[in-house]
Amino acid sequence: MLSTERYAYCGLRSTLGVVAMRQISSFATGEWLGPGAGAKPISSAITGNVIAEVGNDALNVQSMQDYARDVGGPSLRTLTFHDRARMLKAIALHLKKYRKILYEISFDTGATQSDHLMDIDGGIGTMLVYASKGRREMPDTCVYLDGPPEQLGRLSNFMGQHVCTPLQGAALHINAYNFPVWGMLEKLAPTLLAGMPAIIKPATSTSYVTECCVRLIIESGLLPKGALQLISGNIGDLLNHLDCQDVVTFTGSEKTGLMLRSNPNLLANSIRFTAEQDSLNAIVLGPDVTKKMPEFDLFIDEIEREITAKAGQKCTAIRRIMVPSNRVDETIKALSNRLTRTRIGDPRDPKTNMGALVSNEQKSDVLAKTALIGAEAERVFGNPDDFTMMKSKGAFLPPMLFYCANPDGASNLHKVEAFGPVSTIMPYRNIEHASELLNRGKGSLVASVITHDTDVAKDITVSSAAFHGRLYFNNRDSMSDATGQQSVQLRFMEGYILTIVIV
Amino acid sequence: MLSTERYAYCGLRSTLGVVAMRQISSFATGEWLGPGAGAKPISSAITGNVIAEVGNDALNVQSMQDYARDVGGPSLRTLTFHDRARMLKAIALHLKKYRKILYEISFDTGATQSDHLMDIDGGIGTMLVYASKGRREMPDTCVYLDGPPEQLGRLSNFMGQHVCTPLQGAALHINAYNFPVWGMLEKLAPTLLAGMPAIIKPATSTSYVTECCVRLIIESGLLPKGALQLISGNIGDLLNHLDCQDVVTFTGSEKTGLMLRSNPNLLANSIRFTAEQDSLNAIVLGPDVTKKMPEFDLFIDEIEREITAKAGQKCTAIRRIMVPSNRVDETIKALSNRLTRTRIGDPRDPKTNMGALVSNEQKSDVLAKTALIGAEAERVFGNPDDFTMMKSKGAFLPPMLFYCANPDGASNLHKVEAFGPVSTIMPYRNIEHASELLNRGKGSLVASVITHDTDVAKDITVSSAAFHGRLYFNNRDSMSDATGQQSVQLRFMEGYILTIVIV
Repeated sequence: MLSTERYAYCGLRSTLGVVAMRQISSFATGEWLGPGAGAKPISSAITGNVIAEVGNDALNVQSMQDYARDVGGPSLRTLTFHDRARMLKAIALHLKKYRKILYEISFDTGATQSDHLMDIDGGIGTMLVYASKGRREMPDTCVYLDGPPEQLGRLSNFMGQHVCTPLQGAALHINAYNFPVWGMLEKLAPTLLAGMPAIIKPATSTSYVTECCVRLIIESGLLPKGALQLISGNIGDLLNHLDCQDVVTFTGSEKTGLMLRSNPNLLANSIRFTAEQDSLNAIVLGPDVTKKMPEFDLFIDEIEREITAKAGQKCTAIRRIMVPSNRVDETIKALSNRLTRTRIGDPRDPKTNMGALVSNEQKSDVLAKTALIGAEAERVFGNPDDFTMMKSKGAFLPPMLFYCANPDGASNLHKVEAFGPVSTIMPYRNIEHASELLNRGKGSLVASVITHDTDVAKDITVSSAAFHGRLYFNNRDSMSDATGQQSVQLRFMEGYILTIVIV
Repeated sequence: MLSTERYAYCGLRSTLGVVAMRQISSFATGEWLGPGAGAKPISSAITGNVIAEVGNDALNVQSMQDYARDVGGPSLRTLTFHDRARMLKAIALHLKKYRKILYEISFDTGATQSDHLMDIDGGIGTMLVYASKGRREMPDTCVYLDGPPEQLGRLSNFMGQHVCTPLQGAALHINAYNFPVWGMLEKLAPTLLAGMPAIIKPATSTSYVTECCVRLIIESGLLPKGALQLISGNIGDLLNHLDCQDVVTFTGSEKTGLMLRSNPNLLANSIRFTAEQDSLNAIVLGPDVTKKMPEFDLFIDEIEREITAKAGQKCTAIRRIMVPSNRVDETIKALSNRLTRTRIGDPRDPKTNMGALVSNEQKSDVLAKTALIGAEAERVFGNPDDFTMMKSKGAFLPPMLFYCANPDGASNLHKVEAFGPVSTIMPYRNIEHASELLNRGKGSLVASVITHDTDVAKDITVSSAAFHGRLYFNNRDSMSDATGQQSVQLRFMEGYILTIVIV
């Protein structure tokens, strides 16, 4: 049971049982600043009631940038990679100690305890992975030598050496609502390890969880001043002040990504910008897999988890399910059987295995997107107008499975991401056709391939690796050890190709 | 002596001594297409007379993209890295054999024979470096494994491996006028080595040299169909047709770079875009160097070469010269003495050691930019209104040296690049101040540091590496072997930091 004291630690004005309106603060130039003009209400995903308010139009974002650059950066740059790695480990262990506070506050986002393990423990785990890599793979110095020296002249007295030194600006991380803790920590860990200060801007709807996590970090006293700041609310005109030493990352919708990327100042100064936006991830059942093979059950397991975990609100969730034409019926049957055991409800109830979407706005968005998918595919499981939590004021939805007989003729299926418990089955003729369908996602975070045939894995790697952040192969030999296609440990692989070696 | 036959080989309608108007063609979907509607005249840099015409509005750029993707890409992808490296070597040796044709045709760009060595032999040399790296550092397979496998699960049956496979689109290379051969080959070599087809778009004013080089490559028969195409003239609406598997590179002015980068289709599809544009490169004379040390002469040598080579039309040329306050007078004196020996004139004359700018438009642009520099600095050497070639109709300019006593108060000096034989001396107080001035270039290709003190090199690396594509250190020990800050062999280091180890 959490004590009032711990709530107070998190800056929440509450007593046990009665939670007052939460005032979500920003942490700017070393001070906590509560909401002011421009504050917006945040509703509980479970009840629809307003539980918090966030935002302060008076926040001086430019002074935050100056503080990061002039105070945070210089302090971090005096530390070696090993110093920074030790600092990350200490922060992660501190968060681990107090993680129950984060669990408790996260239920209102609609997340179950099992979802918390992904977001909160997953975030802490990612930070530990970076800490470990920092100690094992980087030097105990401030400069990283990248590869061996190269002889450039005819003799060996003129040599070249790639080196990496920290950028001297700030990293602005604009995060998505679905992983308020992990989403921050997975970016913060490499930023701090590299010796750069960070300014975090969480998505409004779950910003109260991020704020609580930032409080835990700041109050641990483990970070130098200026290394971490938080904007709860609007970033104002911060993008217009950034320069060539700053970095912007964004996780969220394609529409917002395009707006940010098109900022005239970012373009004029070639400011480093990385976005992770709408992704039409897929899973392929290998043509070698029959219903009696252990790979078939593994395939169904993976899909069930990807549809129901976080109520499908994961950037890596499977949106497209590709099966050989002759496996369509048994796939629909097996998945439907499995999804009937989904227990939707209050995420605080231990029997619940799928919680709510983050908000009713998000629920409406998912329904609008499933209507687009429904124009090209038939719904074969789940009915948003007839399910257990239908009458709740919370943002609940049932898992929904679609089937599209003609994926070549479809368009929405390959570009519209319904960011909820929604996925579509489609038949393929051969591996070449499966790769074509995969690649119609035009650059997805991940594709999973369940096969026990090494040639299938090789063919898909050659045909589709260039279109994916990673490829995830799994089968009977690796399944006991596999971490799942969304695994947090895999995230540092982004931008590369991950393949699981089938030996 | 070049034969008529060889001119014909280059598609030039000419006889010895009498060169007719050159019709510069494009090479699209396997065919050479001459200029048509929308063709523009090109003038000789030396005489100002029109010597060629280029452009064809009817060019079907979308079919070129299709041809690259559907014909060129698949052929290249069946080759291993070693196959491609052998192909690069064969092309480079073929070009070497016929390089005199390229020399002869290049004089009209204003370049001297010594400039040709940089552009033509330098381009061939760069291709050979990539060929060699492909054979020595890459596998004889179609997939490149990047680093060792990583264990991701608790056991060793679930592993991760970074792999690189070719993108399945085309690389569009939009090049600058100053290096019509090297500028193409330095991009073409890594593109082909990676297994991607290229579409080359040279700058109009020197496109006849690039066209000649492309003819040599195509007629060698060494490349698979669709691997190389050429747009002589306008790219039309090609940018609007590119997708996530394509790549665009650009070398040229900041203004054009911003226009390309802002293309709505590139932004909407996050298409890979790399630009190399206006760079305020600098050289620093270490505080340890006195006039009697060999490093002082080396410093003067480097600057003289960077001002006069290619008449200063190099993206790596030194624009800012930083010297300790007490070395200003001797630097101005030594440089002025050296620059008096510059013999400006017809580049075909072996006595000429500085040719013309590429065009009279470019000459006007440089004069406009030197006026901006002149508002903040005093001209201490060279007078564009009084020099040997002043009355020529060609695009000649003298070397010009400026001095700015207060570089902290200056603005244009750190952001305006006069792309000609122009450089500005400025005093610095200490290493920290020198780094501040270096960094005011906001991201330059290269900074050179002439010092015999290892601590000076270390301090500047830590302070300024993050702002530069590479740092170039030179002194008495490395000077005999050093390749110069602009060296073509160093170009593959772009995006990283190059330091010369002072052992």
